[in-house]
Amino acid sequence: MSKTKKLITVDDIVGAWAIVPTPAKPDASDWRAEDTVDLDETARVVEALIKSGVNGLLTLGTLGECATLTWEEKRDYMEVVINTAAGRVPVFVGTTALSTRETIRQTRVASDMGADGTMLGVPMWCAPSVETAVQYYRDVAEACPDMGICVYDNKEAFKFDFPTAFWAQVADIPQVVTSKYSSMDRLMRDMAASRKQIRFLPIDMAYYSAARIDPDFCKAFWTSGAVCGPAPAIELRERIAKAKETGDWSQAGALTGEIGRSFATLFPNDSFKDFSMYNISLEKARMDAAGWMKAGPVRPPYHITPEPYLEGARQSGQAWAELHRKYSGE
Amino acid sequence: MSKTKKLITVDDIVGAWAIVPTPAKPDASDWRAEDTVDLDETARVVEALIKSGVNGLLTLGTLGECATLTWEEKRDYMEVVINTAAGRVPVFVGTTALSTRETIRQTRVASDMGADGTMLGVPMWCAPSVETAVQYYRDVAEACPDMGICVYDNKEAFKFDFPTAFWAQVADIPQVVTSKYSSMDRLMRDMAASRKQIRFLPIDMAYYSAARIDPDFCKAFWTSGAVCGPAPAIELRERIAKAKETGDWSQAGALTGEIGRSFATLFPNDSFKDFSMYNISLEKARMDAAGWMKAGPVRPPYHITPEPYLEGARQSGQAWAELHRKYSGE
Amino acid sequence: MSKTKKLITVDDIVGAWAIVPTPAKPDASDWRAEDTVDLDETARVVEALIKSGVNGLLTLGTLGECATLTWEEKRDYMEVVINTAAGRVPVFVGTTALSTRETIRQTRVASDMGADGTMLGVPMWCAPSVETAVQYYRDVAEACPDMGICVYDNKEAFKFDFPTAFWAQVADIPQVVTSKYSSMDRLMRDMAASRKQIRFLPIDMAYYSAARIDPDFCKAFWTSGAVCGPAPAIELRERIAKAKETGDWSQAGALTGEIGRSFATLFPNDSFKDFSMYNISLEKARMDAAGWMKAGPVRPPYHITPEPYLEGARQSGQAWAELHRKYSGE
Amino acid sequence: MSKTKKLITVDDIVGAWAIVPTPAKPDASDWRAEDTVDLDETARVVEALIKSGVNGLLTLGTLGECATLTWEEKRDYMEVVINTAAGRVPVFVGTTALSTRETIRQTRVASDMGADGTMLGVPMWCAPSVETAVQYYRDVAEACPDMGICVYDNKEAFKFDFPTAFWAQVADIPQVVTSKYSSMDRLMRDMAASRKQIRFLPIDMAYYSAARIDPDFCKAFWTSGAVCGPAPAIELRERIAKAKETGDWSQAGALTGEIGRSFATLFPNDSFKDFSMYNISLEKARMDAAGWMKAGPVRPPYHITPEPYLEGARQSGQAWAELHRKYSGE
Repeated sequence: MSKTKKLITVDDIVGAWAIVPTPAKPDASDWRAEDTVDLDETARVVEALIKSGVNGLLTLGTLGECATLTWEEKRDYMEVVINTAAGRVPVFVGTTALSTRETIRQTRVASDMGADGTMLGVPMWCAPSVETAVQYYRDVAEACPDMGICVYDNKEAFKFDFPTAFWAQVADIPQVVTSKYSSMDRLMRDMAASRKQIRFLPIDMAYYSAARIDPDFCKAFWTSGAVCGPAPAIELRERIAKAKETGDWSQAGALTGEIGRSFATLFPNDSFKDFSMYNISLEKARMDAAGWMKAGPVRPPYHITPEPYLEGARQSGQAWAELHRKYSGE
Repeated sequence: MSKTKKLITVDDIVGAWAIVPTPAKPDASDWRAEDTVDLDETARVVEALIKSGVNGLLTLGTLGECATLTWEEKRDYMEVVINTAAGRVPVFVGTTALSTRETIRQTRVASDMGADGTMLGVPMWCAPSVETAVQYYRDVAEACPDMGICVYDNKEAFKFDFPTAFWAQVADIPQVVTSKYSSMDRLMRDMAASRKQIRFLPIDMAYYSAARIDPDFCKAFWTSGAVCGPAPAIELRERIAKAKETGDWSQAGALTGEIGRSFATLFPNDSFKDFSMYNISLEKARMDAAGWMKAGPVRPPYHITPEPYLEGARQSGQAWAELHRKYSGE
Repeated sequence: MSKTKKLITVDDIVGAWAIVPTPAKPDASDWRAEDTVDLDETARVVEALIKSGVNGLLTLGTLGECATLTWEEKRDYMEVVINTAAGRVPVFVGTTALSTRETIRQTRVASDMGADGTMLGVPMWCAPSVETAVQYYRDVAEACPDMGICVYDNKEAFKFDFPTAFWAQVADIPQVVTSKYSSMDRLMRDMAASRKQIRFLPIDMAYYSAARIDPDFCKAFWTSGAVCGPAPAIELRERIAKAKETGDWSQAGALTGEIGRSFATLFPNDSFKDFSMYNISLEKARMDAAGWMKAGPVRPPYHITPEPYLEGARQSGQAWAELHRKYSGE
Repeated sequence: MSKTKKLITVDDIVGAWAIVPTPAKPDASDWRAEDTVDLDETARVVEALIKSGVNGLLTLGTLGECATLTWEEKRDYMEVVINTAAGRVPVFVGTTALSTRETIRQTRVASDMGADGTMLGVPMWCAPSVETAVQYYRDVAEACPDMGICVYDNKEAFKFDFPTAFWAQVADIPQVVTSKYSSMDRLMRDMAASRKQIRFLPIDMAYYSAARIDPDFCKAFWTSGAVCGPAPAIELRERIAKAKETGDWSQAGALTGEIGRSFATLFPNDSFKDFSMYNISLEKARMDAAGWMKAGPVRPPYHITPEPYLEGARQSGQAWAELHRKYSGE
């Protein structure tokens, strides 16, 4: 498959990119469990997302349990996602690992399966310098020349600040075309430093800001809400596109406010650091409470979470589900 | 082998425990390299350490490149270490991984090979709560009932502070018998909380302090200096044993001062945080400069290090080598 | 004076707000020095800023050496600034201190002198909770009912993250009308939470982003560049105003790019944390190198700075000065 | 008085040094309150401490509310403490301020009053480099040649890590004779670097460790427990002195265990960082619950504290009070 695959470019990164979890069977929190991925639900969700109109898929990041799947589970999951998508939308799979060589090994398999790219964080045993981080992306790109790279910018997961100097340098790697991005306060500097070779994807609730700051370039975002019901994400994409045409941003702003309020209870103590300790279980609880898909239990060791935090996540999922009902007309 | 293996206990953890690196072939910094472990040097070093009189071996931690070896390399290396040791001294191998299940998979292999235990840190994608960390150790212990556990307490590698409440709880797991320990300011509290079920191993230069604080219980330490020449570590063990008998600590204190001064240039900017970014390359440069063994190049992505930092590490290795000459009579 | 003073409102906070340093006499780095403020230069700079068209003045923050002036110096300086401004533009003076009562004491004096408000950070001995921080602003507002309050949001100086929950609560204090703001990634949330009762002032190089995100509400910014030559700041204000009218943001964007590039060498290691250790000396070196005013030496203990950092600051000042020449036609 | 005062030396720093709070009148949490120090209680406590046998007094640190007293209150309080002590034990007063010059101003007043020294942290608006911190102590020493200096090592209050390089340099200032010290993991290195020119005072519960590590040099400690009833601190001093003579440390160890357990509920979430947000209120609640003195309410802005934290502090105070009853025979 990789032979005929066309390398993805920054121009291909547009619209609503859905973060997809790795659905788990009921016993998945038990360390004895094997083969924990619910592949049927995986296929169902991917199909439904594509039918809803999302523009791309991001998988196997933090909430996608990149850390805690066995290699066999990860491989089977990737295969189902890629084959279900069947080229209709680009698919990025996560292959972050503890070393350059293991990342390359996994990425090559994903490439052979037909993935369009990898959503890739930096190895996390030691905190990398900018030089170390850049060389890592360079090595993976060289070893996997058919794969696009989405830099997974998550400052809590990766002991790395993803500074502007980093973006200036990875922008020289043609395969680095996008980033699941979380540094909104530096967006203008990072766009300038990367010479618009990298489409920075803000989270859904920050897409409005990015789209206003640079309407021409900022035309894509990521959303883990899409699997709580895709309608709000699709509606957001449309309203912002329309605002760019008409110059009237009020409708896009109103929806952004609704989406923002649905997050109010997701982050314990209003802290991304605290959220990151329980990222997986909170996101999966949010998804399960929304009811659009079955994310299922969390794989060990990250399955233990304070109940009040879970309750906040569930409320967040329900709030999103309400928006989904509103905008899907369901 | 595991059938006949006797479970290691806290009473078995005494004396000088050498940290052993994973010797690398000349091309090991290249991501294309496979089979990078110098197994001959591995066997030679293990044999020489045991002949020198060290009491135990710790492998595959940070500087042992647990993160960056392929599974096949790790397995082959463990096998050589365990078989060379051949039961003469206890061997702990590192099996820290990104998840509970992968840790268990690796630990079971190590157990079957005859390892006495695992030197085990906590998964590092998300920062664990105390509950999460304790459950992880519990699960591994349950899954690998023949293995001792050495808690690898490294606050920079593991996003975990290893607080006293943690020690109180893991002390209930009988297989947790020791710790590569770095929280000297809390030693008394942690000993009390763990009810002396866990032998805390301080670094060589802190052994004097620990041995004075609790002469009865503090009778072991770890040393990455042993592979720069084992004589200072052996001499330290002996002098402290003698000081406990005689009550005269001056000789032990003098040697501790010499060892401490050899570290003066190892930590960039006098900062463990900065050191931890380059831990592997600095320790390997120190070892290679000492000349007692060939640690060899660093595996990617951690092979890029500022030259002034490396120079400090080399000076530290040379200073230790001088102590080795002094105390070995070589 | 305070009797007839009209309380400043959020509507009064528009345009370019210049941060003014506290000019120092040549011996000001010596702890023996008394009466170190160059009051003549102070008056000259305030007059020149107002004539250049800036809309408001912010003084006695970090670079304004709030921490290191004696009370007598601070009082004399405030008096000169307020009297020189003479009501032509609003003046906020910094009265951050180690306690609520000392802040109130200083703020009352400033109020009696005719200051329009205080630029106020939170006491910094202990890290405050949200409750503690909000109560502090409440107490100061209650004690000084004629004074507007500009919340000085600086996460390095104040051991406080200024989270959204904080803004939601201080927005209930009518005197809190503005903020020297540094949390651009949360701007939309903070505007929503504070119900637009607080005009958030971004730094000059972030004004473009803020103005695009919310053209109606974001109509003011702060600039420490104005005292390196006010023309770029004034030009920025005008271009953004025009862009809001015409919908063509290219000219505003181009100038923002120029301003952004002038900052390239100001932040050591691209790090706000590192910058904050030497904030005062770097900003004063930048100003002195620009040549538009004489900021003079730094008061102890913050007068010792690595020379390479100072050199970066000087280059930044020269780059701004060039922009000033370009846009002032001088 | 300063004329005839003999400069304190490291040899004078022995035994139990009590931390004394600044007793507050009932309305002290109100920002309108003036003259909030209960000077009668101050005199009573100082007298009682000296009669109980403590060896020195430390005042006006964090829990001593150095930050939140007015200058007049601080001055009056110092005067009462110094005059009540009347030369019977050395008195160090806290004069930490936001700048070098203000520190010098306050320290000179204290010196004129007859204080033996200042317990001095570093200015906290900007994080100081080692060079900045050392120069600050040098300047204060030069300006106040009759005053001893106790370096107040508190990593949460002061944005400074007090690294070994710092101790190496401040040890060259003859007036720096001691430190309220909190870096027990570096004690041996810091003693070596400072060439035993500085008596490091560990907290009471760490005195046992320090005394064993270096029985000759470590012969003093600080205790905020003394004002919860001085008997345990005095008993600790005696038992450790005896252990040094006899070589039998069991009694000293047993008491250390009792003291350690009394702290179990003082630190919220077992975290010094969390404790430091509420240091003052927790310590004063602990003291008031112990019942030996009336510490009284907390001055603003630090008077707002979560009730569960206060409850833990009260339990800690009651536990200490029980020890006091046991060892005082009361």
